[in-house]
Amino acid sequence: MKIALDAMGGDFAPRENVEGALLAARRYGISVVLIGDEPTLRKELHKSRFTSQLIEIVHAAESIDMGEKSVQAVREKKQSSLHVGLDLLKKNEVQAFVSPGHTGALMTASALILKRLDQVERPAIAGLIPTLRGNTVVLDLGANVDCKPHHLVQFATMGSVYAHVIEGKTKPKVGLLCNGTEPTKGTELLRTTYQLIEKTNLNFVGFVESLDVFKGKVDVVVCDGFVGNVFLKTIEGMVSATSILIRQDIQRNMFSKALFGLFYMLFKSTLKNLGKKFDYSEYGAAPLLGVNGLVFVCHGKSSRKAIQNALIRARSSVEGHFLETLNREMLKVHVV
Amino acid sequence: MKIALDAMGGDFAPRENVEGALLAARRYGISVVLIGDEPTLRKELHKSRFTSQLIEIVHAAESIDMGEKSVQAVREKKQSSLHVGLDLLKKNEVQAFVSPGHTGALMTASALILKRLDQVERPAIAGLIPTLRGNTVVLDLGANVDCKPHHLVQFATMGSVYAHVIEGKTKPKVGLLCNGTEPTKGTELLRTTYQLIEKTNLNFVGFVESLDVFKGKVDVVVCDGFVGNVFLKTIEGMVSATSILIRQDIQRNMFSKALFGLFYMLFKSTLKNLGKKFDYSEYGAAPLLGVNGLVFVCHGKSSRKAIQNALIRARSSVEGHFLETLNREMLKVHVV
Repeated sequence: MKIALDAMGGDFAPRENVEGALLAARRYGISVVLIGDEPTLRKELHKSRFTSQLIEIVHAAESIDMGEKSVQAVREKKQSSLHVGLDLLKKNEVQAFVSPGHTGALMTASALILKRLDQVERPAIAGLIPTLRGNTVVLDLGANVDCKPHHLVQFATMGSVYAHVIEGKTKPKVGLLCNGTEPTKGTELLRTTYQLIEKTNLNFVGFVESLDVFKGKVDVVVCDGFVGNVFLKTIEGMVSATSILIRQDIQRNMFSKALFGLFYMLFKSTLKNLGKKFDYSEYGAAPLLGVNGLVFVCHGKSSRKAIQNALIRARSSVEGHFLETLNREMLKVHVV
Repeated sequence: MKIALDAMGGDFAPRENVEGALLAARRYGISVVLIGDEPTLRKELHKSRFTSQLIEIVHAAESIDMGEKSVQAVREKKQSSLHVGLDLLKKNEVQAFVSPGHTGALMTASALILKRLDQVERPAIAGLIPTLRGNTVVLDLGANVDCKPHHLVQFATMGSVYAHVIEGKTKPKVGLLCNGTEPTKGTELLRTTYQLIEKTNLNFVGFVESLDVFKGKVDVVVCDGFVGNVFLKTIEGMVSATSILIRQDIQRNMFSKALFGLFYMLFKSTLKNLGKKFDYSEYGAAPLLGVNGLVFVCHGKSSRKAIQNALIRARSSVEGHFLETLNREMLKVHVV
C-alpha cells in the first residue's frame, strides 16, 4: 500500500512535508510517494540526516499557491501536485492522497478527477472536536464557503454516516450550528436547511449553539465551510491564548520565583494535554467526504509531526476500508 | 440619572433581572426603572430580602419571547417592555436602556423608536474580546444575521470609533474576520466588503483569521451578526470546557487525593481569573452602536451579577458622554 503526499502544499512545504514523510516511513514503515518538483524534492531529501527506501518521488511541474482562485487554478495548472497525486489515486497506484495545500483547490480537483458520490454535489471536510462527552463530528471545515440548503443536507448525511463509522454512534444526533436554538433564529440559508433536514430519516435535533457543542449536545455539527473554518480556528486560537494567559496568571500570583517554577512544572503537563486534545497536528488530517477516493486535508501550517500523523491516519483508513463502509452507509439515508 | 431595565427579557427574567437591579441600587446607588408587568414585578420585589428607594416600576403590558420573529413582534406588541423602555429613553426620562431580551427585536425596536444615526443603516452590537495585547472590539455580535457589504463597512466605521473612544487607540487597525488572509478567501459578501473598506480612511489591514484575533493582530474585528455570535459563543464554550478538562486532567494525573486537593486549590484562582477574563457577566453588556440613544444588550443567560454590571456599565457610559463622543467621531470617517 502506498500513500501519496502533496509535497508542495502548505505553509512549510516542501521542508516539513518531506521530513514528515521520512518520519512516517522510518518509524511506521509507511510507503510514501512525494508529489512535487523532482529536483527540489531530491535536494530536500538529500538535506535530511536519514533517508528511506520507502520514499519515492513522482514529478509534478506545477504547484498551486494559497492565494490562487480554486476553480481557475485547477483548470489552468494541469501539471500541479494536486492533479498528479489525484491521478495516481484514481489509477489506484496509491491508495490515499494527503495534502496540506490549498483546500478549495483540493476539493475542486478531487471532485473533477475522482468524481463525487452520486448523492453528493459538494464534498466536505469533516473534523473531530473533543467535547465533554467524546468526539463530535463537525463539517464542513472549509471546502465550501458559499453553500445552498441542499448542500448542508448532504453534509448532515455524510456527517451522520461518518459519526457512525468512526465513532460507532448509532443514530447520531445531528445539529445545525446556529446563533440560537429557536427555529426562528439563523440565516435564511439555515432556516431553509432546517425544514429540509427534518424531512430525512436523520436523527436531527435542530439548531445548536457553539457553546453547547462542547457539552456534547450533538454527535454531528453541520455548517457551511466559512462558519466551520471560523469555528475551528477560534478553538485553535483559544487553546493557545488560554495556555499563555494561564502561565501569565500563575507567574503574577506566585510570590516567589522558585514556587512558580515548581507549580508551573507540575502544571505544564496538564496544559500540554489540553493542547494535545485540541491540536490538529495530533490527528493530522481530516477526510474529504463525498468523493470516490481517500483524500485527507491537513492544516496549512502542518509541521512534520502533523504530516506524519496524517500519513498514519491515511494508512489506517485504507486498512479499515473506510471509504467502502462510508459509501455503503450513505445509501441508507433518505427522505422520509 | 436613571437607567431603565427590561425586567421581562432574558432566560432568567424576571427574578435575576430584579435581583440585579437591587444589587446595583444597594451597592452602587444606581437609580433603576424596572420595565415590565407591574403585578409580577411587585411580587418579585416583595420576595427579595432587601428593597431600595432607588427602584421604581413602569408597567408594560406585553413582553417579547426569544422565539418570536423580530420585525413582527416589534410591529405587533406596541406595549412590550422594549417599547415602553425605549420610549422613556427617547423622552430622556431615563438616560440608558439595558436589556437581556430578544436581541433582534431590541435592535429593530431601537432603530424604530430612537432612530438611527444618519450614516448608519444597521445598528450593531459591539463586544470586547481579551487578547494577548489588550482588548479587541468585535462587531456585530448578533444584531444583524443577514448583512450586505455596505452594512459591514458601517460596522467597521463604528468599531473603529468605538476602539478609539473606549480603548484609546489612535488609528485602530481594522480586520474583516475570514477563513484565510489572502484577498481571494472569504464569501462573496466579504470580498466585496474588502474592496469597499479599502476606499475609506479607516486603517484597514485586510482579512484576519480568528486564531490571529487572540494574538491581538487587529484592534477591531468586523463580521456579520451570525458569524460574530458563533465566534463569541465558541469562546464562551471553550472557556468552560477548558476549565473542566483541566480539572479532569489534574485529577487523573495526581497520585494522591490530598495532593490533588492542594494542587487544585492553588490552581483554582488561576482558572477563575481565566474565566473572568472571558466572562460576559463581568463586563455585563455590550452597546448597540448606531442608534440615537444609549442601549445595552446583555447575554440572554444573564445572572443578577451580569445585570448589576450592565447597569454599572450603562451609568458610566452616561457619565462619560459616550454617545456624544461616538456620534462626533463617526462624522470623521469618510470615503477617500
